[in-house]
Amino acid sequence: LAPLISRGFEVHGISSRTPVTAVPGVRWHRLDLLDFGHLGSFLADTAPSHLLHLAWETAPGRYWTSTDNVRWLEASLELLRAFSDAGGRRAVLAGTCAEYDWGGKGSCFEETTRTEPASLYGACKLALYNVGSAFGRERGLSTASGRVFFLYGPGERPERLVPSIVRSLLLHETLRCTPGDQVRDFYYVEDAAGAFVALLDSEVSGAVNVASGEGTTIRGLAGRIAEKLGRAELIQWGAIPTPATDPPVLVADVRRLTSEVGWTPQYSVDTALDRTIAWWRHELRGAK
Amino acid sequence: LAPLISRGFEVHGISSRTPVTAVPGVRWHRLDLLDFGHLGSFLADTAPSHLLHLAWETAPGRYWTSTDNVRWLEASLELLRAFSDAGGRRAVLAGTCAEYDWGGKGSCFEETTRTEPASLYGACKLALYNVGSAFGRERGLSTASGRVFFLYGPGERPERLVPSIVRSLLLHETLRCTPGDQVRDFYYVEDAAGAFVALLDSEVSGAVNVASGEGTTIRGLAGRIAEKLGRAELIQWGAIPTPATDPPVLVADVRRLTSEVGWTPQYSVDTALDRTIAWWRHELRGAK
Repeated sequence: LAPLISRGFEVHGISSRTPVTAVPGVRWHRLDLLDFGHLGSFLADTAPSHLLHLAWETAPGRYWTSTDNVRWLEASLELLRAFSDAGGRRAVLAGTCAEYDWGGKGSCFEETTRTEPASLYGACKLALYNVGSAFGRERGLSTASGRVFFLYGPGERPERLVPSIVRSLLLHETLRCTPGDQVRDFYYVEDAAGAFVALLDSEVSGAVNVASGEGTTIRGLAGRIAEKLGRAELIQWGAIPTPATDPPVLVADVRRLTSEVGWTPQYSVDTALDRTIAWWRHELRGAK
Repeated sequence: LAPLISRGFEVHGISSRTPVTAVPGVRWHRLDLLDFGHLGSFLADTAPSHLLHLAWETAPGRYWTSTDNVRWLEASLELLRAFSDAGGRRAVLAGTCAEYDWGGKGSCFEETTRTEPASLYGACKLALYNVGSAFGRERGLSTASGRVFFLYGPGERPERLVPSIVRSLLLHETLRCTPGDQVRDFYYVEDAAGAFVALLDSEVSGAVNVASGEGTTIRGLAGRIAEKLGRAELIQWGAIPTPATDPPVLVADVRRLTSEVGWTPQYSVDTALDRTIAWWRHELRGAK
């Protein structure tokens, strides 16, 4: 929300729940995107020029296979149609690295890496991208999709990788892990937010990787967290096997984000980890 | 409907309009698939085991670019989910040769020809195929899609190719055409119906071309019709240019249909054209 406001957007947020935080300059609207009924009249009243659509099923463990992915695809297409009907001009959707073929060699590049999702989640996101793009061409609606890789930062669900590591070291609990050799493209969530808003505020169309462009092993990232918090021995590497479906390397080519959108990260990994750890310290104190 | 009945299916037809023809053994249900409201309770009551989903936007000239393609994608996903929720086991969807990359060489083969739709129609059909397949894998629902090429036969809309030729020769009217060099895979509609029902009644999954496997130029097909009706001079070849987007050759590889589904056409081209012409003679007499 902060990068949207700093670029001068009049921000209307849609949430199915009452928003937890009041952000100055943001008007919240309570609306369930999975219930299409009231969307048309809301968009007609608000007449937005830009749409940044991030909502989806994201529950860890569940989201890869949940058939709610299909409902979110339907709801997203409905939203895109209603936005265009209401006079919308520019839409940016949230895509995923799971749209790519994970069996390929080298970094994932938007223009040459094959799309071949292995999961229902990836299939629905890719369908939204392809249909959204074709729909936009027919309607004169400018569209783009930010393909998100491995985000971390404040507010993340505790079951996910980085919170698991940070929490285990902060709480002095052991954590059972795979050997952690997988190379991933980790990206700080505030930089991802900035990248999405920069993409929204551009005329770049098509898919754009939202990532750092750098590969780090899971074990390497955990090592950097342990440098800050100590107690590296709490993480039991190799206690569980690496799932056979886990690709060894998943890294983005970010030349589109860097050159075409003109976005570069604002936070070093060091600062990003400090901010993440500080957030969890605060969160865990609050829970006591 | 006839091949469904002859294979022993209990047939429930869904139509948004009152059906024109009463077919013995078919129970019609009036339901608009674009209006999701009543679908769930209908499917719960009927508890179908098999689904053959053919409905879509098909108005000639309009269907390639119509944004109703997106509504049909949404409605089709809703139908598939509701069918699975109601205990359905096997679903066959109607796909299209427009899902393939039309810039490739050779026949379109399901397993190797790239999918790269150039139209919103093709993008929505491909999205339905990909998401439907992934959804089916999660739900234990067996799915397949029949990729239709160039159908002709009784009941076709008069603006389309074969009816245009047949009607112009029957009515002694001139018809302005492209040079007609495009090679297409023409297939008789009653054979396509048989192929779809054979596919439904099989356990074959994935995409299956519904086509003849043989290429014929548009001009060659028109020549065969003119052999039967005379007045070949009424067709003005080259009076209009071939659209730049028209690929020179679009022919299916039909080994999956022939070997895996075990379906071979029941009508020769000669018989198929005779039946088509007879239908139009009857239709035009009725219109007088």
